[in-house]
Amino acid sequence: MAPPLSADLYVEVQTFYARQMRALDSGKLEDFAQSFTEDGVMRHVSRDDHVQGREAILAMLRAGLPAYDGFIPRHWFDKFLIETVDADTVRTDYYAMVTMTDAKGTVVLQPTCVVEDELVRVDGTLLLKSRVIRRDDLLLR
Amino acid sequence: MAPPLSADLYVEVQTFYARQMRALDSGKLEDFAQSFTEDGVMRHVSRDDHVQGREAILAMLRAGLPAYDGFIPRHWFDKFLIETVDADTVRTDYYAMVTMTDAKGTVVLQPTCVVEDELVRVDGTLLLKSRVIRRDDLLLR
Amino acid sequence: MAPPLSADLYVEVQTFYARQMRALDSGKLEDFAQSFTEDGVMRHVSRDDHVQGREAILAMLRAGLPAYDGFIPRHWFDKFLIETVDADTVRTDYYAMVTMTDAKGTVVLQPTCVVEDELVRVDGTLLLKSRVIRRDDLLLR
Repeated sequence: MAPPLSADLYVEVQTFYARQMRALDSGKLEDFAQSFTEDGVMRHVSRDDHVQGREAILAMLRAGLPAYDGFIPRHWFDKFLIETVDADTVRTDYYAMVTMTDAKGTVVLQPTCVVEDELVRVDGTLLLKSRVIRRDDLLLR
Repeated sequence: MAPPLSADLYVEVQTFYARQMRALDSGKLEDFAQSFTEDGVMRHVSRDDHVQGREAILAMLRAGLPAYDGFIPRHWFDKFLIETVDADTVRTDYYAMVTMTDAKGTVVLQPTCVVEDELVRVDGTLLLKSRVIRRDDLLLR
Repeated sequence: MAPPLSADLYVEVQTFYARQMRALDSGKLEDFAQSFTEDGVMRHVSRDDHVQGREAILAMLRAGLPAYDGFIPRHWFDKFLIETVDADTVRTDYYAMVTMTDAKGTVVLQPTCVVEDELVRVDGTLLLKSRVIRRDDLLLR
């Protein structure tokens, strides 16, 4: 049986995302890639892609950078379901929304998503082993 | 005197809402209704309605379904005040916002709300005894 | 070395912001000003202002009130980094977004921000000693 969710783990998971998303939103893509395990996987169900390994994740993010030109993105998460699988594995499931603010102060909302992550503890630190992103707009098509 | 708010209860309450809102946002209305006590009450102050009991809540939600046609709604909560009333009763007060994403990826924000809930523990599980929703736009009229 | 972040402190900090922002969003500006230490500082990096002391903070907020006329603002925070400096000092760093709902139900998003706070414990209660606000749109100019 999986160990129950402790409040300490809840806070640790929130802090993991606070750091990881700050790296992404401020364009520190290497730091973001380092938050994955070496064999970490990122998958957008909508695009049917499946990118594995830090280098491949970094390359995918760099290819996507022009879309953010002139904007500062911010990722907002909510409605966390956090489940411990074993002492070193945590599954999370949460809502995600991205705002894009431009220099004039206009804010555009990207389509909402639901994300499923598997985190593993490596040398005491949580790393992302797998992320699956489902965009709501594409579920409707 | 009410027991102090423990971090464990904070996490339990967040998880309650993560499950309850996932049911609502994915159209599993029976599951949503089951998150209320049998005599649970849902009240939109703005509409001056007052719906009591799981069946009545379910009927109200079903009547409202057409408004979500073509959209995936997501509920976002924040600014939680959580107060234990006694060992089996918790009052919460929080901000709520609903995004509506359509198939083209357009996201519309519904008017912000403040919600007051009373949760009770029944056989170890939190259930919603009462929900009062105040929509900000209607407060301004 | 700084004490580790406890789940209890995480919850206490969330509750501090839930109370403080409710005061601001509902126009109880005196209550908001009282959440600062007597020598508390509020600084918008973007405007290059620097306001010190409860009275000065209150005066600044009152001067800004007309911008909210006809709207109910709500502050949404996320991505908390919380760090204890010593037994009585906590530093926080978080994303902030403000929605403005009008009587017709239209919701406008203000430019996203990143906020850095220093909180101190005075007679057992957390108070805000310093707030620095960075608006994303102004970082792009």
